[in-house]
Amino acid sequence: MDKSIKRVKDIHPKRAGKIGDQPGIIKIAPDAVKPTINIYSYNEKELVTDKGTDIKVILDQLKKCKDHDHWIQIKGLGDAALLEDIGEHLKINPLVLEDIANVHQRPKFDEYDGYLFGVSRLLHYGRNNELVNDQFSALIKDNILISFEESHVEYFEAVKTRLAASAGSIRKLGPSYMYYALTDTILDRYFELLAQVGDNLDAVEDRLYRSADKTVMYETQQLKRTMIVVRRASWPERDKFNEMLRSDNPLINPGVKVYLRDAYDHVVQIMDMVENYKEISSSIMDIYLSMVSNRMNEIMKVLTIISAIFIPLTFVAGIYGMNFAKVDPVTNKVMPDNMPELYSPQGYYYVIAAMLFIALVQIGIFWKKGWFSKL
Amino acid sequence: MDKSIKRVKDIHPKRAGKIGDQPGIIKIAPDAVKPTINIYSYNEKELVTDKGTDIKVILDQLKKCKDHDHWIQIKGLGDAALLEDIGEHLKINPLVLEDIANVHQRPKFDEYDGYLFGVSRLLHYGRNNELVNDQFSALIKDNILISFEESHVEYFEAVKTRLAASAGSIRKLGPSYMYYALTDTILDRYFELLAQVGDNLDAVEDRLYRSADKTVMYETQQLKRTMIVVRRASWPERDKFNEMLRSDNPLINPGVKVYLRDAYDHVVQIMDMVENYKEISSSIMDIYLSMVSNRMNEIMKVLTIISAIFIPLTFVAGIYGMNFAKVDPVTNKVMPDNMPELYSPQGYYYVIAAMLFIALVQIGIFWKKGWFSKL
Amino acid sequence: MDKSIKRVKDIHPKRAGKIGDQPGIIKIAPDAVKPTINIYSYNEKELVTDKGTDIKVILDQLKKCKDHDHWIQIKGLGDAALLEDIGEHLKINPLVLEDIANVHQRPKFDEYDGYLFGVSRLLHYGRNNELVNDQFSALIKDNILISFEESHVEYFEAVKTRLAASAGSIRKLGPSYMYYALTDTILDRYFELLAQVGDNLDAVEDRLYRSADKTVMYETQQLKRTMIVVRRASWPERDKFNEMLRSDNPLINPGVKVYLRDAYDHVVQIMDMVENYKEISSSIMDIYLSMVSNRMNEIMKVLTIISAIFIPLTFVAGIYGMNFAKVDPVTNKVMPDNMPELYSPQGYYYVIAAMLFIALVQIGIFWKKGWFSKL
Amino acid sequence: MDKSIKRVKDIHPKRAGKIGDQPGIIKIAPDAVKPTINIYSYNEKELVTDKGTDIKVILDQLKKCKDHDHWIQIKGLGDAALLEDIGEHLKINPLVLEDIANVHQRPKFDEYDGYLFGVSRLLHYGRNNELVNDQFSALIKDNILISFEESHVEYFEAVKTRLAASAGSIRKLGPSYMYYALTDTILDRYFELLAQVGDNLDAVEDRLYRSADKTVMYETQQLKRTMIVVRRASWPERDKFNEMLRSDNPLINPGVKVYLRDAYDHVVQIMDMVENYKEISSSIMDIYLSMVSNRMNEIMKVLTIISAIFIPLTFVAGIYGMNFAKVDPVTNKVMPDNMPELYSPQGYYYVIAAMLFIALVQIGIFWKKGWFSKL
Amino acid sequence: MDKSIKRVKDIHPKRAGKIGDQPGIIKIAPDAVKPTINIYSYNEKELVTDKGTDIKVILDQLKKCKDHDHWIQIKGLGDAALLEDIGEHLKINPLVLEDIANVHQRPKFDEYDGYLFGVSRLLHYGRNNELVNDQFSALIKDNILISFEESHVEYFEAVKTRLAASAGSIRKLGPSYMYYALTDTILDRYFELLAQVGDNLDAVEDRLYRSADKTVMYETQQLKRTMIVVRRASWPERDKFNEMLRSDNPLINPGVKVYLRDAYDHVVQIMDMVENYKEISSSIMDIYLSMVSNRMNEIMKVLTIISAIFIPLTFVAGIYGMNFAKVDPVTNKVMPDNMPELYSPQGYYYVIAAMLFIALVQIGIFWKKGWFSKL
Repeated sequence: MDKSIKRVKDIHPKRAGKIGDQPGIIKIAPDAVKPTINIYSYNEKELVTDKGTDIKVILDQLKKCKDHDHWIQIKGLGDAALLEDIGEHLKINPLVLEDIANVHQRPKFDEYDGYLFGVSRLLHYGRNNELVNDQFSALIKDNILISFEESHVEYFEAVKTRLAASAGSIRKLGPSYMYYALTDTILDRYFELLAQVGDNLDAVEDRLYRSADKTVMYETQQLKRTMIVVRRASWPERDKFNEMLRSDNPLINPGVKVYLRDAYDHVVQIMDMVENYKEISSSIMDIYLSMVSNRMNEIMKVLTIISAIFIPLTFVAGIYGMNFAKVDPVTNKVMPDNMPELYSPQGYYYVIAAMLFIALVQIGIFWKKGWFSKL
Repeated sequence: MDKSIKRVKDIHPKRAGKIGDQPGIIKIAPDAVKPTINIYSYNEKELVTDKGTDIKVILDQLKKCKDHDHWIQIKGLGDAALLEDIGEHLKINPLVLEDIANVHQRPKFDEYDGYLFGVSRLLHYGRNNELVNDQFSALIKDNILISFEESHVEYFEAVKTRLAASAGSIRKLGPSYMYYALTDTILDRYFELLAQVGDNLDAVEDRLYRSADKTVMYETQQLKRTMIVVRRASWPERDKFNEMLRSDNPLINPGVKVYLRDAYDHVVQIMDMVENYKEISSSIMDIYLSMVSNRMNEIMKVLTIISAIFIPLTFVAGIYGMNFAKVDPVTNKVMPDNMPELYSPQGYYYVIAAMLFIALVQIGIFWKKGWFSKL
Repeated sequence: MDKSIKRVKDIHPKRAGKIGDQPGIIKIAPDAVKPTINIYSYNEKELVTDKGTDIKVILDQLKKCKDHDHWIQIKGLGDAALLEDIGEHLKINPLVLEDIANVHQRPKFDEYDGYLFGVSRLLHYGRNNELVNDQFSALIKDNILISFEESHVEYFEAVKTRLAASAGSIRKLGPSYMYYALTDTILDRYFELLAQVGDNLDAVEDRLYRSADKTVMYETQQLKRTMIVVRRASWPERDKFNEMLRSDNPLINPGVKVYLRDAYDHVVQIMDMVENYKEISSSIMDIYLSMVSNRMNEIMKVLTIISAIFIPLTFVAGIYGMNFAKVDPVTNKVMPDNMPELYSPQGYYYVIAAMLFIALVQIGIFWKKGWFSKL
Repeated sequence: MDKSIKRVKDIHPKRAGKIGDQPGIIKIAPDAVKPTINIYSYNEKELVTDKGTDIKVILDQLKKCKDHDHWIQIKGLGDAALLEDIGEHLKINPLVLEDIANVHQRPKFDEYDGYLFGVSRLLHYGRNNELVNDQFSALIKDNILISFEESHVEYFEAVKTRLAASAGSIRKLGPSYMYYALTDTILDRYFELLAQVGDNLDAVEDRLYRSADKTVMYETQQLKRTMIVVRRASWPERDKFNEMLRSDNPLINPGVKVYLRDAYDHVVQIMDMVENYKEISSSIMDIYLSMVSNRMNEIMKVLTIISAIFIPLTFVAGIYGMNFAKVDPVTNKVMPDNMPELYSPQGYYYVIAAMLFIALVQIGIFWKKGWFSKL
Repeated sequence: MDKSIKRVKDIHPKRAGKIGDQPGIIKIAPDAVKPTINIYSYNEKELVTDKGTDIKVILDQLKKCKDHDHWIQIKGLGDAALLEDIGEHLKINPLVLEDIANVHQRPKFDEYDGYLFGVSRLLHYGRNNELVNDQFSALIKDNILISFEESHVEYFEAVKTRLAASAGSIRKLGPSYMYYALTDTILDRYFELLAQVGDNLDAVEDRLYRSADKTVMYETQQLKRTMIVVRRASWPERDKFNEMLRSDNPLINPGVKVYLRDAYDHVVQIMDMVENYKEISSSIMDIYLSMVSNRMNEIMKVLTIISAIFIPLTFVAGIYGMNFAKVDPVTNKVMPDNMPELYSPQGYYYVIAAMLFIALVQIGIFWKKGWFSKL
């Protein structure tokens, strides 16, 4: 489990471009991948799909499927021209296009004149178990939903399956339902992520009670930071659903509101879990720190008991290791006062007995102090 | 008392089903128990009961008792078909049915077109003293209250007794009163749970002052987590009663409002107790940690006093254990400067006296520093 | 001062009766004392008093004094029949009567149809210096104020004196002024309690700087808990006065509002003091804990200095206590390389000098490190 | 700098008088000083001043200067009769007079029928560098501002100078401007106080990095408490200015509003600084505590290194200090197995070499562990 | 990296001038630099620039370019006369001029009769890597924007370039767009600053895991304080944009609102990053402190293991170093009970074996306790 908990590095959102640059200029990050476009045109009767890499395929499809709703899924943001073409064709404010390209937006939901713009964060554990924090943004205009993702990873398999299979709400309720379906799928991933965090916390806590070592601190901190990332992504998400619920924009199909309320409940549940896991992390850290203190106490007790017992005994042995002379080697004068114990026939036994007595008294004292039981 | 405080494991709410699944699909948890149905049809004059396991018994009873109010108690959620039948018969939104089956909802109260939906958490200590956190949900439509519980444990014995015995409000005020009666019974359990937590905290604190050991930390943390679970269940409960009080939905009998206000007071009292117990937990942990520090100090003082007294004495003994020769064994040259003390007739007594003096001076210094009194 | 700070045990509010019991049933706590009734009927001209133990004395007095205002003071809640009689006579909702008998209510102020109901907490240090937390509740209906107290302790001596003496507002402004007068007297007690807490905190802090021992922690925690109890009692008190100020219920004499605003200011002042004392408690605990750390440092320094000086010296003495033979006792072979120092005429003095030198160097190092000054 | 940071003792506000006393009774604190009265009557043309100690001088001046605005400055509250006279003459509610005399009010601003009442706290470092927390209150009625201060210390020299010199706003905008001018002068003192606190914090922090001793903790705590006092004084001050800004009371000259907004900005700036200094205090304490821990670590390392090196060496020396006999002194039996090392010609050198080796290995280990560099 | 993290000294805002001074007096700080004036007059067709040091150049340009918008950039506040001239010419309230000169204002946005006034903080790392916190204020009146900066450092290079080059919004939307452009450039600097803080935090954390030393604490604290400074600057900035968005003042061109909303998003993103970095700082400090504790534990374990093993062995060696005599040197009496082990032929080997046994048993115990693995 240890190795699965990676250091959660924070992405430092830098505004691309130079300080004081004109707003509304699309700045493509140097590591952005080239876009691929999937178009899903659907109504209650049929589903027409196409794919491509530039604006032409979109325009063709829009012309071809006049009485369909469209979901244009763009994966990869590495082509400023495509964004500009879309902006021009759909008359999107350049500030919005800038936000789409600048992948450090907080989740938000803005209503513009004639279209809607929403941002969410795609959170999940990546291939190497690192926390991925991608941007998902979407435009709703007329009967079109255009979604933008940072990478080519496939998030919305399930939505595509439902779109192909069912003739249910997803085919009927237009682009705002599609937007809900995509966002709710993103939230499903949050639940998955949180379940994994929960399992990790459980494993850390198990280890805490079994054999606490210093990775406990490190891993709990990493999990706590994951929580912080999820919280930063989900708090504005709640405001977003709130605004969508209260909005009377005709682009939001009234039939979608009941689903939005359901998604709102999911966000609240996510936030609730995050707070809960943060409290559990704190509790683990408190227990861990008190364990470190207790272990220190135990170590000190061992040292103190051994020292307290043997240091006085060693002193006694040292006394009788002194060389005070009974007889002066030069004058042969007898000095009977010098260490007479050494010349007593049972002196050795008496000293050993005295040492045993001292040791037992001390053990008794420590026993009474309760030092032999653990703190 | 120790063994009664179990580790409070968090249930990690997972959304059943796969990511991106269509909303409104009822997903039955694999460990869900099969439902049993109890029907209580009552008016001021009589109480008619029936029981069964499928929708048929409900439909029969509804047909039979036309001018009664009905409480349909469903225990166990392991039958998707039953939920679907109920949904179809009462025209319930599939999203609501999904919430009933997915037992990780936060308490909430939603008004739908023609019916009401409420969720609460059933908290209590289970058979093995573990914290049980089940879901209770209820639908109010026309003169019917349908309640759903996760397990077959009987919570509402007292309500049933009142229903059978009394001809009071419970028989008169319709399904919204019945909903109040059930929810208030759930809150009664919270009080019971909190009283137990309070007793445990008292016991832990008693132990803290009597013989603090490291279980104090562990148990206080478990109790704190229980508090967190209760808080997560009761905070939204307060919002729920608030919404019910402010609602003018005809499904809520105005005569029930005074009871709802009473229940609201109970929730506020529960939240107040939870905050109080959390502060007491923190206080216990603070005292415990300061005790650990003090104990460390005491241990160190014992070590230091003993070391400080005996190490210098041992050094003195070591001095007079040195073998500097007064007479060279080979040349027989006399060296009177080598350790003349050893050849003084009272040398031994002088050294013992000097050692005593050193020891007394040190004891005096430590006494003055106050190290013999406890910190 | 030490003995005056008692452990603040929390009362665990338990709802009397069984779980799921019918609401509105009066449950008398087993240790409730029997009620005594004092009736004060007053108008600008006269004050008529009577006393008794049952409803009869109340009804008599009400009949006798038709154009008076009445304060019916009931001390002791051990008689369910009395509460029921009052409830029946004044048409009080059974839920309110239940709240009067169940003495764990939070302060609140509820307006019912035709009467008002208020709850406060009576806090003071009891006979054995323990914190008493009794319930005070009151009903205002027509020209009657009925107050209920848990015990026979006399709180309102001063109010009674004013009632007897003055012909001021207390005789003119009716039961809502009387309610204000009683509540403000309760708040006066809070000030008294807080002053005592403040004195205790001062004493603890004095002791902290003079001779910190581990009671500091314990007592500060107890005082902090007292603060928590006061805060729990005063926060809802503020809401109460706010509601009364904003209410246009005819039972609240408009002339009383200016007094209520004054009482509101008192509550805010109490809350302010509580927060202040809580911050002082935290500060005392922080200083105490840093003192414990410092003391530990000091102890360790003593140990380290003494060990560091004498352990090397003892080693040197140990060296010259070794018995490497200059002359083999069997073969009489001379081995001049074995410990020649022992056979040098001034060897002893050189060694003593070397030891002194080592000791001085070490003392010098520790001096430079600043270990002889206190941290 | 040390001596300049005094222990910040909290004044424990006690309501003068007995519990349950009638409200609106003026209770003079026993240590209140006798009042002196300064009257400043001014209009755009002239400034007339007078002084005295009783109500007569006020009435005279009011009669004499009919078309002036008046600032009546009363310093000292030790005369209940004066307050009563003012109350009677200006028809002030007794509760307000009680608040003026009871010098523990929080800052507030109350509108009464026909007059305004405001309270502020006068905070400054007193003569002995102790924190003084006096009460300033003021009444605005018609064209009169009466201000009350607790002591004879002169706060408003600058205002008086402006009043005498300028014919600016202060002479034109009436008593509400005068109230603003006085309050803003009080806020100026807060800035002065905070600047001093800031300097002290800087000095403490300098000392922390130069030579941390335990006064750091004590002084930081005292400065933190000063911050708490300022915060308690400034928070309600903000509400006060807010209320004055929103009020449309004719007693507040509309031309003063722009000044009140300025003063409001000052209060917000003060609160901002207080929060800032509190964070700096916490940061200092965190650094200090981590320094104590580090120092402990360093001490322990010294002890451990010295002990770990010399204790094994001393043991080796002890081994060769044992007296196992090669020749039995009684039987003269030769026992060649007993400590043959002692009789090896180079035994002594080998042992010394072995000891050196052990010591070097240990030093090497500690070096590798990095114990010789500081933590 | 170490040296790049400077101690963040707080500027203690002192109100210039004396306590109680008349409001609206311009007080120039003694270290204020002399102003230089740049004027940019622009419309869609042309850009006319001029520069100078006094009011004359402004008046000339205003007269010359009647149908242009003007940006008057004043760098340096060291000339009270200039401020007064501007105030007189544009009829600005003296309180506003005072705020411009007193460079410790919080960010704010005030609407006055006929003009707008805004303040922001210019935050960046200065030449010596110290945190610079300058004031930027601006007046918008008619078609004029006057901006005031504290120093001669050039912040708005990019804006000037855009103004010269583009004929875009900056030339069309008037002074409110210019105000937005300047403020947004300031916010761009915040992002730059935060990116640097983020990099520093990363570097500190790397060092924490690689080789934690006590600079970690110091640097984390400095970065935390930088965060506090940014937070204090950005919180009121958010309110500012909020007010501007909600304002319907004709001086704010409606076409600018969409840009203001964008800037608002930037502020929220900055605040979000600040909170995030504060949490990371706390996490670093927690890990650091737990590392210090762990290191202490490790040190103590080394000491305890070595002491516990060698102290008893030294005692045993001390025993056999005692000089109890087998034969009395004076009487030649044989005392066979005195230390017979010394005269056993294999005594030495037995003792060495016993010592080895003791040492192994202890090592075994410590091994089982897990002391040889790291905590």
